[in-house]
Amino acid sequence: MASRLLTNIGELLTNDPTLGDETPVGRLHDAALVLDDERVVWVGAASAAPDADERYDVGGLAVLPGFVDSHTHLIFAGERSDEFEARMAGERYDGGGIARTVAATRAASDEQLRDESGARLAALRAGGVTTLEVKSGYALDVEGESRLVALAREVTSEVTFLGAHVVPQDYVADRDAYVALVAGEMMMRCASAKWADVFCDVGAFDVDEAREVLVAARARGLARRLHANQIADIGAIALAVELDCASVDHCTHVSDVDVERLAASSTVATLLPGAEFCTRSPYPSGRRLLDAGVTVALATDCNPGTSYVTSMSFVIALAVREMGLSVDEAVWAATRGGAGALRRADVGHLSVGARGDLVILNAPRAAHLAYRPGSSLVREVWRCESDDA
Amino acid sequence: MASRLLTNIGELLTNDPTLGDETPVGRLHDAALVLDDERVVWVGAASAAPDADERYDVGGLAVLPGFVDSHTHLIFAGERSDEFEARMAGERYDGGGIARTVAATRAASDEQLRDESGARLAALRAGGVTTLEVKSGYALDVEGESRLVALAREVTSEVTFLGAHVVPQDYVADRDAYVALVAGEMMMRCASAKWADVFCDVGAFDVDEAREVLVAARARGLARRLHANQIADIGAIALAVELDCASVDHCTHVSDVDVERLAASSTVATLLPGAEFCTRSPYPSGRRLLDAGVTVALATDCNPGTSYVTSMSFVIALAVREMGLSVDEAVWAATRGGAGALRRADVGHLSVGARGDLVILNAPRAAHLAYRPGSSLVREVWRCESDDA
Repeated sequence: MASRLLTNIGELLTNDPTLGDETPVGRLHDAALVLDDERVVWVGAASAAPDADERYDVGGLAVLPGFVDSHTHLIFAGERSDEFEARMAGERYDGGGIARTVAATRAASDEQLRDESGARLAALRAGGVTTLEVKSGYALDVEGESRLVALAREVTSEVTFLGAHVVPQDYVADRDAYVALVAGEMMMRCASAKWADVFCDVGAFDVDEAREVLVAARARGLARRLHANQIADIGAIALAVELDCASVDHCTHVSDVDVERLAASSTVATLLPGAEFCTRSPYPSGRRLLDAGVTVALATDCNPGTSYVTSMSFVIALAVREMGLSVDEAVWAATRGGAGALRRADVGHLSVGARGDLVILNAPRAAHLAYRPGSSLVREVWRCESDDA
Repeated sequence: MASRLLTNIGELLTNDPTLGDETPVGRLHDAALVLDDERVVWVGAASAAPDADERYDVGGLAVLPGFVDSHTHLIFAGERSDEFEARMAGERYDGGGIARTVAATRAASDEQLRDESGARLAALRAGGVTTLEVKSGYALDVEGESRLVALAREVTSEVTFLGAHVVPQDYVADRDAYVALVAGEMMMRCASAKWADVFCDVGAFDVDEAREVLVAARARGLARRLHANQIADIGAIALAVELDCASVDHCTHVSDVDVERLAASSTVATLLPGAEFCTRSPYPSGRRLLDAGVTVALATDCNPGTSYVTSMSFVIALAVREMGLSVDEAVWAATRGGAGALRRADVGHLSVGARGDLVILNAPRAAHLAYRPGSSLVREVWRCESDDA
């Protein structure tokens, strides 16, 4: 097991508040890290670094934990750019386009899905994502959702069963039967997923339907997360907190009561500014959530309808420009925040013992992720191959 | 002189309204192009394409003219990410930070400037820019501006003398002397530039000062362009139209009278949404300008203070999300619009006789430039090496 010394780091964000400047990002200057094949084994001042089998000098550039993208719909077929153009010309998003991707995904072979999703995965990885979550939800039948979960498991251990994405067209006359199918046979066949999720919003599933699915998930030992408050506030956040969801995702429309509820809970608020960008929706204030003590994560929401985004740098820049986060807060939310949204303690930071997943930027400061928007500043991505996360 | 056939183009935007769908972008499907070493020699249906010495099958992807970035401050030293962070935390932009870049640029060697600017140029080129304008303006003394013009000429023929960027600190007590220097000796020493430009705004130069510089430029045979109406409306657009400026750049704050004035002129309005993004300023409506009949261009404004942007795709996505342009209008503005802002007839379109500068996207439709924001979709850039534009 070879050890590697990464040294001459101009700015190192560890996300360990006991290190460096003792802020949440745990910033060190002129720093070094030592990694073994899997883990961080030493972190501190470059001048005090121990020897290692290999030595990399990063020449004063910035290093930070690999991004944790805790919300993607990576696996789908086809594209919906025409729908995007219509929306930019004034049409409203109501979730209706999902059925188009369902049709394209059902019709696609495993190989086609691997190819199309693989290109997106490569873009996410090149942009610094070292841990990602992937949802099913574009098949909406038992065989198809089971296939999507299996394909997602080829990519990550953070797989989410999202049979309750929308009610498929063949069940619109009998929603209850679809909810029962999702909570029953479909979930049983998708039980190799780690997570269950529901799109709980206007045009998708109401709170009672979402509860039925999430309670069944809890009974089967699936951890839980929820699409909440994207289009409207129908009470999803209270449900999520009640059922110990790790994350409520979107939070575009959040009441003061729900802000307090989240602050008092162990549920993370995952903001998805790519979705607001691509649907021309108002951005929620991340500042308001942070000031109330809510834990905030940032993710891409990579999907073909409302956020065809594969760059965490872009998400960070939007969160700074539009949601009131400082660059430090945005980088933390895109790393340790995402880890929290996946209830992972081993990623999203670079303390001793953490996975050695990190990003070397083509910039001297992590602030360049927002200061130079629209371009990738990721020079190198180091990612442990030792497990499938 | 070898000819090359580019065929199986899923969507070809020619920007020639006599071709294809006869819209301003001149869209063809299942199209082909033939190029010689310099020029487009044939364009039309793939099924009707003539033979050529070499044949490239692009497999149904989209092809469009190379981007024309008509406004960059490419050549500078240092960075100002701390100023960006302060602005995001609430400080206003007033142009004051330019002096920091002047100090860093004056102190930098030619080699350092070539290295730092070369990295930005590489990013712009990789993102599909095949023609770009480069300004001086970070030296503000005779020797220094002359050096920056010479360095810019190593990169492009579209060089702009911007001695009138701000009044340097050693002249604040005698602004008139600085304006006289710019319009006199400094301009004479920078006469190998094609263009002269003035930052005509609050905190920079007023209309009378700008007139003095631009009139001198006209007398010397330099073509003219103007930074106008970014921070405030102090009457710059009327001056630009009066002195036949090819472009007024920024146009963040524009009166109805000025919209009419531009529509009746041959002056292009160049929008720089990266600057509004990076200064958190309100975006001007491109829709309003287009509806009034104004010609609109889009450019990066690549600079270390207010728009450290090197991606024309990002600029296009912002123009669609924030300025009311359709994707077609934004792509046109980033290509043929930019060519208009540089008074170039040979670039920005793919009619027979145009330069064979083009971009192959990693997407079946040009709409993906806005539909998939934040990532580069540029797969290949073909650019004539036959002249230095």
